[in-house]
Amino acid sequence: MTPPATTPFVVNGRRYAPPARPAVVICLDGSSDEYLDAALDRGRMPHLQRMARDGYRGLARSALPSFTNVNNASIATGAPPAVHGIVGNYFYDAASGQEVMMNSPTFLRAETIFAAAARSGRRVAVVSAKEKLRKLLAQGLVGPEAPGVGGIAVSSEKAHEALVATHGIEDLERVVGLPTPPIYSGAASLYVLEAGVALLARQRADFLYLSTTDFIQHKFAPEAVEALEFYGGIDAALGRLLAQGAVVGLTADHGMNAKQHPGGGPNVIYLESALTQQFGPGFRVILPITDPYVAHHGALGSFAVVHLPPPGAAAPVRQWVSELAGVTEVYDRSTAARKLELPEDRLGDLVVLAGRDVVLGRTPEWHDLAAVAGGLRSHGGRYEEMVPFLLSEPLRPAYAARAAGDPRNFDIFDFVLNGTAL
Amino acid sequence: MTPPATTPFVVNGRRYAPPARPAVVICLDGSSDEYLDAALDRGRMPHLQRMARDGYRGLARSALPSFTNVNNASIATGAPPAVHGIVGNYFYDAASGQEVMMNSPTFLRAETIFAAAARSGRRVAVVSAKEKLRKLLAQGLVGPEAPGVGGIAVSSEKAHEALVATHGIEDLERVVGLPTPPIYSGAASLYVLEAGVALLARQRADFLYLSTTDFIQHKFAPEAVEALEFYGGIDAALGRLLAQGAVVGLTADHGMNAKQHPGGGPNVIYLESALTQQFGPGFRVILPITDPYVAHHGALGSFAVVHLPPPGAAAPVRQWVSELAGVTEVYDRSTAARKLELPEDRLGDLVVLAGRDVVLGRTPEWHDLAAVAGGLRSHGGRYEEMVPFLLSEPLRPAYAARAAGDPRNFDIFDFVLNGTAL
Repeated sequence: MTPPATTPFVVNGRRYAPPARPAVVICLDGSSDEYLDAALDRGRMPHLQRMARDGYRGLARSALPSFTNVNNASIATGAPPAVHGIVGNYFYDAASGQEVMMNSPTFLRAETIFAAAARSGRRVAVVSAKEKLRKLLAQGLVGPEAPGVGGIAVSSEKAHEALVATHGIEDLERVVGLPTPPIYSGAASLYVLEAGVALLARQRADFLYLSTTDFIQHKFAPEAVEALEFYGGIDAALGRLLAQGAVVGLTADHGMNAKQHPGGGPNVIYLESALTQQFGPGFRVILPITDPYVAHHGALGSFAVVHLPPPGAAAPVRQWVSELAGVTEVYDRSTAARKLELPEDRLGDLVVLAGRDVVLGRTPEWHDLAAVAGGLRSHGGRYEEMVPFLLSEPLRPAYAARAAGDPRNFDIFDFVLNGTAL
Repeated sequence: MTPPATTPFVVNGRRYAPPARPAVVICLDGSSDEYLDAALDRGRMPHLQRMARDGYRGLARSALPSFTNVNNASIATGAPPAVHGIVGNYFYDAASGQEVMMNSPTFLRAETIFAAAARSGRRVAVVSAKEKLRKLLAQGLVGPEAPGVGGIAVSSEKAHEALVATHGIEDLERVVGLPTPPIYSGAASLYVLEAGVALLARQRADFLYLSTTDFIQHKFAPEAVEALEFYGGIDAALGRLLAQGAVVGLTADHGMNAKQHPGGGPNVIYLESALTQQFGPGFRVILPITDPYVAHHGALGSFAVVHLPPPGAAAPVRQWVSELAGVTEVYDRSTAARKLELPEDRLGDLVVLAGRDVVLGRTPEWHDLAAVAGGLRSHGGRYEEMVPFLLSEPLRPAYAARAAGDPRNFDIFDFVLNGTAL
């Protein structure tokens, strides 16, 4: 077969010079470092332990809000949300006056590394767990709007629906050797990695992005048997990727924390209710974690956007919100855009972040708490910002220096393609 | 010998019911979780690994500013700085118009757990690396002002100076079996743990607080040979504590991050210079990390307090500082006191925090950068807030629930004394 192409390419102002080896980036959704620790301390991740010892292990800062699509878009583009435009799953489009899901690829304002790599000659495959994410990441890589690029983009959620014209491959279940898994499962994520192993083994791809889903992390603490089993499965697949000679980078989109009272029950600040009670009607609180997969989190996360009723004097509201116990940061629109690297036109008047064990809600009626009756673990704020950052190979000196500074999870392709001493 | 006393005691509003076993709390100064990870991944900390597996391992939130004395005072009192009054090593006393070191025990506003435990019948020993910290922690435990309490408080820095009247023990070098180590060394910290082992073995103490110094962490990254050797030594001493049947809790006062440009050289915002240039003279920037041990950090940390020139309009200065790249948070005095749980009367007009790889300085002339020419690693801000939190025993259900929420490093005595399922 042809060896992996090494033609350099530039995307979003960054230059990538891929090695003549398979390159794999894994994004473990919702994997705070504690999950790796719990599994490593119990000897359940020998391949990851080898990566940590022989390559590099540290922490990186994710993009805020610490949500899935925000960070997958950042990893895919190598850029912060101010560049790619994705600020969550859900936002208020002031132009149309509508609250809309942000899962259409048309919201993505930057080209992906995948499309650029494919055009430069790499055999690129993107595998996500969730179908909504697949659509975002497939932009410019495969499908009728990307003629001749020749990439693969599939999801485990809809593995059985993959078609050459739209996904770059079909008969995926046979290729992977496994049936389409249920989305509310650890299997949905293990399927992502097994698809990567199979695509690599069959030489269908030499440049892979494998992005799992955080069902297990939302439901189980790091030391839970179910989490340890899951990470054991991740490690086994990781071993099969490494055994094929791939350079592997592993990071996460965001962390995960328990968000409940010690006695049980979600620890929620119902921000729209509180604002209405204090200042009167007209407030609109947007929770960008909102998505169709409510069983994960009941639309409760640690980040919210507030749209003020007109004329909207932000300062007194900002001060009042900042004094609420459990609220950690409140920014006006332009400060949020600058400090958190967010696209100003997709924010509201205020941006609010909550503490390690606190989530922000809209009104009690708006949320279906039955979905999180067994316990709420969620993310979105500053305490889910730091994520693991591992490379299978030692770093070149310049990259070691950067890793010791303030590396971002969306630098992972730069590190995998340019940063390792091969 | 008498078994350890189990008489409950109350201090700073919290009740402690000690077990009939030796109880040991270790504070590993400047030990971000990455140090434990690097050593554990290389098999260098088998005893800590056993604690993580058979007891509990997680993360806890330290007190801000993430400095040594602030957090040692919090751990010693079980309370945030708003209660105990220690906000750093150094502050501007507006009453006297003087900048003063805060290392006199008279600045401590709350009783320590050590004094209360000793009065309730425990044989208490406090061992610190630095002498300045010993004096703070010895308050009410030993010395002429604590007659009849009968505690021990020694430092490795001045081990050879220990006297019964002032330290509760003498001939410490013979007891430990080691000469007084140099303070700028890993040995200064290992000596702390070995003193704990010896005091326990000789039945001189059954209730210990062992607080190391962060020379190694300031000088070496987690994966450096020197750090790995150091943590190997920590683990060996930990094993000797566990072998004596102690319940052990381990946490840290603060984390540690590289604070330099990728090309080398400290990444400093000289805040007093910048403010003077922008607004004119009269600004006083206080760096509470300032202490006599400059080789550690050159008085450069990620937290600063600003005193404005009279009449002191805080809002425009606050806005301007918050826009500086590398500054992450700026609070006025009362908001800082409330959000960061700090004593309002010991702050300035503004409190400023810096990013993961950024430190705040005063003026270029004020700092001796020769001390950190080899590289700057430091702490003080939000990115050094999260610290390891380990217990040698499984947690009772109520404490497991608290550990999963937002535990603080200064809850460690509560967890060790009340929280384990013995």
